[in-house]
Amino acid sequence: MATEAAAPTARERERGAMRRAVALSARGLGSTSPNPVVGCVVLDAAGRIVGEGWHRRAGGPHAEVHALAEAGEAARGGTAVVTLEPCDHTGRTGPCSRALIDAGVTRVVYAVADPTPAARGGADTLAAAGIDVEGGLLAEEAAEVNAPWLTSVRLGRPYVRWKYAATLDGRTAAADGTSRWITSGEARADVHRLRAEADAVLVGSGTARADDPHLAVRGVPGAVQPLRVVADTEARAVHPGARVLDGAAPTLVAVADDLPDAATAHLDGHAEVLRLPRAGGHGGGHGRGLDVTALLTALHGRGVRSVLLEGGATLAGAFVAARAVDRVTAYLAPALLGAGPAALADAGIATIADALRLTVTAIERTGPDLRIDAVPAASASAASAASAPAPAVHEPKES
Amino acid sequence: MATEAAAPTARERERGAMRRAVALSARGLGSTSPNPVVGCVVLDAAGRIVGEGWHRRAGGPHAEVHALAEAGEAARGGTAVVTLEPCDHTGRTGPCSRALIDAGVTRVVYAVADPTPAARGGADTLAAAGIDVEGGLLAEEAAEVNAPWLTSVRLGRPYVRWKYAATLDGRTAAADGTSRWITSGEARADVHRLRAEADAVLVGSGTARADDPHLAVRGVPGAVQPLRVVADTEARAVHPGARVLDGAAPTLVAVADDLPDAATAHLDGHAEVLRLPRAGGHGGGHGRGLDVTALLTALHGRGVRSVLLEGGATLAGAFVAARAVDRVTAYLAPALLGAGPAALADAGIATIADALRLTVTAIERTGPDLRIDAVPAASASAASAASAPAPAVHEPKES
Repeated sequence: MATEAAAPTARERERGAMRRAVALSARGLGSTSPNPVVGCVVLDAAGRIVGEGWHRRAGGPHAEVHALAEAGEAARGGTAVVTLEPCDHTGRTGPCSRALIDAGVTRVVYAVADPTPAARGGADTLAAAGIDVEGGLLAEEAAEVNAPWLTSVRLGRPYVRWKYAATLDGRTAAADGTSRWITSGEARADVHRLRAEADAVLVGSGTARADDPHLAVRGVPGAVQPLRVVADTEARAVHPGARVLDGAAPTLVAVADDLPDAATAHLDGHAEVLRLPRAGGHGGGHGRGLDVTALLTALHGRGVRSVLLEGGATLAGAFVAARAVDRVTAYLAPALLGAGPAALADAGIATIADALRLTVTAIERTGPDLRIDAVPAASASAASAASAPAPAVHEPKES
Repeated sequence: MATEAAAPTARERERGAMRRAVALSARGLGSTSPNPVVGCVVLDAAGRIVGEGWHRRAGGPHAEVHALAEAGEAARGGTAVVTLEPCDHTGRTGPCSRALIDAGVTRVVYAVADPTPAARGGADTLAAAGIDVEGGLLAEEAAEVNAPWLTSVRLGRPYVRWKYAATLDGRTAAADGTSRWITSGEARADVHRLRAEADAVLVGSGTARADDPHLAVRGVPGAVQPLRVVADTEARAVHPGARVLDGAAPTLVAVADDLPDAATAHLDGHAEVLRLPRAGGHGGGHGRGLDVTALLTALHGRGVRSVLLEGGATLAGAFVAARAVDRVTAYLAPALLGAGPAALADAGIATIADALRLTVTAIERTGPDLRIDAVPAASASAASAASAPAPAVHEPKES
């Protein structure tokens, strides 16, 4: 499997092909769940690209099948470069390991090993058939694109990206509640791309009541509409005629399971109603929000592998408190307000040592605004201890 | 004066020299007030750098004098490249226009015209002496470094940079008041560099009381200590023994001018006391903070040309309300709190249309944190109207 001695040119061709495969895989975001996104590039024996493919939708052909079909006989003696270990189980198109063997490729390079019990083993099957197999090429890049699916496999719940838009001083609206428009049109268009990549878009009752949001994707050609989800614990925020109840996308309203049936009668025929326990378990719990874990488990059970959490502050706080935020995407407008609601509330954090520490993964300009992406620090306490030792209580302040 | 026909090589040499001169000028930040920062590079007749200088401190030689001294006879027939129009008035070292003429340079290139009545006219004097004079080369870069001084000349008050450190969700401390350390050691070291570049460092009474800050510069070799200023309206926040009263730097405590003398007796011999009117004029005003304009005017009268405003939220709000913030430097830590004080309060902004719109001028990483620099948008209302037309009140929400 080692290719340490491979000619640099061949290696560079494979790296280039993997980069292309990773980019192809991203085209599937939002439409392949509960499957992963996968991209594949086939090189002929001379190292030329002769086939490309990506997994487009659950139930459709895998990336390898698309790429091999395009390559045809040119695949014989060539190399398949694929972002995820080829599957070894029989789906609607048969195992990809078998397809690769039949196509006559003599080498397979993949980025990320398949972590699922049902599909893993493809590499072994290929090697047993005499194919030269190597894993790990550009694994980090491939894993980043596949983070929603990989996270959902690891944790048994959907991957959660929390998105918010705020001023530089952290306000999501002015004192009088006005918020149109804190961020620019470019930033708002970017949010529609995030929605298109997600399986579900989620807001809480406060946002539903205050903004009457639509939550569907607009302006993204070919986008698969996400499931629109409102966490409306008391079933009082989503009214008949709410924009989220139109026909643009399916809608699910999650309510407390201790409400009487009559409480959700106004939603009949307009949205699916999902009854969930409140946070902290049953009993005497009116006023408490829904249990975040129960909500995520229910969504996972419906095939949702990624959730775009769009607020508001209280629901986001519950997710942070449950350590159920896997990525933060903040759109910061270069503006100051000095008053108005904050983006995050009630996260159960009382002191600085308990702050949820993140690592910034990307900063970019979106029109006049900044988009900052961050993920929870791998080992927050260890990392912060290393870079900034906790001072003794009576140490003089530094400032 | 036009040099459209100059050989590209000579032009590039002058641009390179100006870039160098701008960098040299920045070395004077924090030590030249009430003078500007200026850098100068002298090229000999063949275009080689033969002298460099910068204005180091008020009362000391100007940049041109340093550079000409280093160049000596090599300046004859050469070019002086200087970031600010050479002065035409007699200071301790005589007008720079005369020094350049005497040194025999045949060409002078400067970046920014001198806006002060006393010193301007150098370009005309040089041209009248037969020297080829050109202004405007890299004017933007030079003006950015000299922004504090240029702003103070234009507005008749010190340039104000508001600096704050907050979490990504805009909190400057946790719910229990703990804030050590929201940002990293790298960010805190960077703040000391900002202090070193400022003539004065300013905090309000809340910060003085809560943090007992020291406000002096540490860890910046050769730094001139800024004037430490506490806006302590009621004279109750700075106690004897406060760290800001030590000998590390001069200290000024600004109090309301309606306080009895006895109210500031505890400061006698420890700090200078400055009495100022409260915001909104005299009479019945207990509880109101100091008048921001009066404070800035008083500081300007003492030669302060740049102020680093370090908080807290209320004082910063008063400055934003007075439109007296010329630059914002935000250190954002990738962390979430969900509770705790905000960076900015009481800025007198009630609705989104009145937000203080900024333009981001720089984003950089400071250790794990982000440093974001922004300045008020040149024409905030016009710019936002162009990019995001105000929607009619009853227009459906887009989200």
